[in-house]
Amino acid sequence: MSARTDGGAVGGVRGGGDATEPGRGLRPRQDDGLPHRIARSAAARRGAGLRTEDVPAWLEERRRAHHFKVERIPFARLENWSFDEDTGNLAHHSGRFFTVEGLRVSTSEGPHREWHQPVIRQPEVGILGILAKEFDGVLHFLMQAKMEPGNPNLLQLSPTVQATRSNYTKVHRGAAVKYLEHFTHPGPEGIVADVLQSEHGSWFYRKSNRNMIVETTAAVPLDEDFCWLTLGQIGELLHADNVVNMDARTVLSCAPFPDDQPGALHSDTELLSWFTVERSRHDVHAELVPLAGIPDWKRGASSIDHAEGRYFSVVAVRVQAGSREVSGWTQPLFAPRGTGITAFLVRRIGGVPHVLVHARVEGGFLDTVELGPTVQCTPSASAHLPAEDRPLFLDYVLSTRKSYPSRIRYEAVHSEEGGRFLDAESSYLLIEADEAAAPLVPPAGYRWVTPGQLTSLVRHNHYVNVQARSLLACLNATGLRS
Amino acid sequence: MSARTDGGAVGGVRGGGDATEPGRGLRPRQDDGLPHRIARSAAARRGAGLRTEDVPAWLEERRRAHHFKVERIPFARLENWSFDEDTGNLAHHSGRFFTVEGLRVSTSEGPHREWHQPVIRQPEVGILGILAKEFDGVLHFLMQAKMEPGNPNLLQLSPTVQATRSNYTKVHRGAAVKYLEHFTHPGPEGIVADVLQSEHGSWFYRKSNRNMIVETTAAVPLDEDFCWLTLGQIGELLHADNVVNMDARTVLSCAPFPDDQPGALHSDTELLSWFTVERSRHDVHAELVPLAGIPDWKRGASSIDHAEGRYFSVVAVRVQAGSREVSGWTQPLFAPRGTGITAFLVRRIGGVPHVLVHARVEGGFLDTVELGPTVQCTPSASAHLPAEDRPLFLDYVLSTRKSYPSRIRYEAVHSEEGGRFLDAESSYLLIEADEAAAPLVPPAGYRWVTPGQLTSLVRHNHYVNVQARSLLACLNATGLRS
Repeated sequence: MSARTDGGAVGGVRGGGDATEPGRGLRPRQDDGLPHRIARSAAARRGAGLRTEDVPAWLEERRRAHHFKVERIPFARLENWSFDEDTGNLAHHSGRFFTVEGLRVSTSEGPHREWHQPVIRQPEVGILGILAKEFDGVLHFLMQAKMEPGNPNLLQLSPTVQATRSNYTKVHRGAAVKYLEHFTHPGPEGIVADVLQSEHGSWFYRKSNRNMIVETTAAVPLDEDFCWLTLGQIGELLHADNVVNMDARTVLSCAPFPDDQPGALHSDTELLSWFTVERSRHDVHAELVPLAGIPDWKRGASSIDHAEGRYFSVVAVRVQAGSREVSGWTQPLFAPRGTGITAFLVRRIGGVPHVLVHARVEGGFLDTVELGPTVQCTPSASAHLPAEDRPLFLDYVLSTRKSYPSRIRYEAVHSEEGGRFLDAESSYLLIEADEAAAPLVPPAGYRWVTPGQLTSLVRHNHYVNVQARSLLACLNATGLRS
Repeated sequence: MSARTDGGAVGGVRGGGDATEPGRGLRPRQDDGLPHRIARSAAARRGAGLRTEDVPAWLEERRRAHHFKVERIPFARLENWSFDEDTGNLAHHSGRFFTVEGLRVSTSEGPHREWHQPVIRQPEVGILGILAKEFDGVLHFLMQAKMEPGNPNLLQLSPTVQATRSNYTKVHRGAAVKYLEHFTHPGPEGIVADVLQSEHGSWFYRKSNRNMIVETTAAVPLDEDFCWLTLGQIGELLHADNVVNMDARTVLSCAPFPDDQPGALHSDTELLSWFTVERSRHDVHAELVPLAGIPDWKRGASSIDHAEGRYFSVVAVRVQAGSREVSGWTQPLFAPRGTGITAFLVRRIGGVPHVLVHARVEGGFLDTVELGPTVQCTPSASAHLPAEDRPLFLDYVLSTRKSYPSRIRYEAVHSEEGGRFLDAESSYLLIEADEAAAPLVPPAGYRWVTPGQLTSLVRHNHYVNVQARSLLACLNATGLRS
């Protein structure tokens, strides 16, 4: 046989040449012990490292240690970024990182049948990875105090590794990404989760990142910007505003929690069939177009804005930092207008908690629809619409929040990826509902699913969108799975 | 809450408004009995309808009954199809069915880094559905004797329903599609499989179809072109050449066979992680371009051909038939050059059968790679290449077939979708291999997986390509799962 053999990057093989002996070289298809070790970590409110109550002070200390400074600048002061003369697309001179281009979307339903918008194009697949290790028989996760220019508070608790391919191929000639080798060369037994997941389909064109959790048994030197926390500790921190960043939330949502429930409103086969129908019934056409001259958007000296001031603006910032792979840079960011609402309605059905998912069309999705939260919107962006075109269930969320706070099972403000989005804050909510507010037979495009079913779906590509994954991570941090 | 409520097309709800009582309204997430009912049907060599040995005569009788005739015609004699003056794309005047356009593909590896080709674009998602029903406690499947113009023998055993959206929205104004209502309005308990699967990524641009198996308990009137067969009977027929069509094979591959094996060489998590790496590491860029003037292809009066006579030609046919939804029509077809080889190498590892899958880049895939057979090629298309660029494992397949026929565990000639492809025949093979021929640590891009793992993957979109699904159906028809 041929020359090209596997570099061993993934998967080792036991058993060698004589593999015919029964059972020799085999592994169980599922690691039945793993979900229970995840649950044990989620139940652990104290860990082997920092105490939970000391984490905010530690983050504050790391923030002070790094002298991180971000300021808005006009586009003309971007360094190595410019608008292409022909297309008007905004790109880095190296051709790497990302570009801001135009997107034209047409769909077969909804209040907006066709629109144009700026979109971020970043074809490279990056790695978002959290390293795990047992201390005293409990899994701990290595979290990083990481600065991102778009975070409202600059520094948040982040995955062990956030690396674009540009990062680890050294396009910006900075220092090596710490702990990266655990994710580029994991041992096969150590992989807890490894799946390509989409990011914001309203802002990115077909972006996905590898979401990885890797367990190690090796000694891991602890860098000063990192700490080991249990899932229970991280869950407690998820109740605070703007502490756990988006990348950490999406990776954590892929943790294989056990499902101890007796069933669900719909079997898994029914759920997959419904999803197939949703993916088949929508005609969505999205294509990249030159950013220059897209209708309804205008470019100024310091921002690209929607004509009516809706949705978001494209802006530019200068960053100065000590702890990053490079010490300073300029870049574009997307700055949403207004705070978002990201909410799951929750009901107990037959005693089992269910959340109401929405099969959402977003222009930047690779494949028409993914499952999103019950409500995912920026209320200010739909305020001009007639009542029948406003997002379903938004009124229930807003009025419940105001008048029935006891139905709020979870609420915190979180921000989206601070490397691409400036002050992109949303209220993340889990809200109880009843038959009157949200019937068991919901409107078309909505379905009741259990957290266990969502956990099964996030093992695979492109079922659950990034906002719903964030909410799943928040849900895992409450008692709402059981 | 709002007006728009679900039409009830998918999913019913039990339990009504008072859904809080423990267990009320719940279903088990998995139907544990179903895989064993599938296995029982696969073991049944006799059914309640036709005897297996009588099927060929019955197919011959249906073939004679329909006076089906297909002839090659020049493009100028196509009715309602024409080449666009600007783009050169070949399209139907209604704008429906499909178009033949140009495709430009660039990839980061392999002997061909960039090429152009004609491609079929058919954005509509069709339904390929097989109806199932128990007779005497054994599942039977309703198979159709269906004519397709591109089949070498015109008529083959096909799914109950093969319907494009044009079919059932009546663009070609024919008779209704028989049994379609079982698939457009299935009862939730009746869904056995329902998943979007890709078709030939080398000939279609991002084509997928719903693959459905639906069980009914209702009385089903039997049309003269249909018969009920057990999986065991269909399995026996899969050993004959050109009897079971591609659409039937891909739907049958989605049947949830049980996995009674103690494990696999790689755990499911490892397998998914390897797939994630394969999907991340390839840079594939594919875009539609005008068909007119693509390099290396030339359009004549009766065909569009590759300059060196390789790969395939685009041709046109006139069809006359009695049993179709319409009585006659003309259409383009793709006609491959030469017979293909589609083969899995098979090894027992720790006593458990494994097949060697290949993470293949095909220009028309929605997402870079899918898992294909060990060998999938047309030997004549690679004959001009230097040895190191010929498909891996092809030499082993060809030499084993010639010199060690006892290692061939399965071989039959099957053809691809006769509605789009003319005489597109391949030898489908399952061939035993050993460590010398195919090591446990295979070349990059290859992995050993069990039939049970493939069965789990085909529950989801876009993991397993159509040729590998065909082979899985063939494998399920042998004793090779256990």
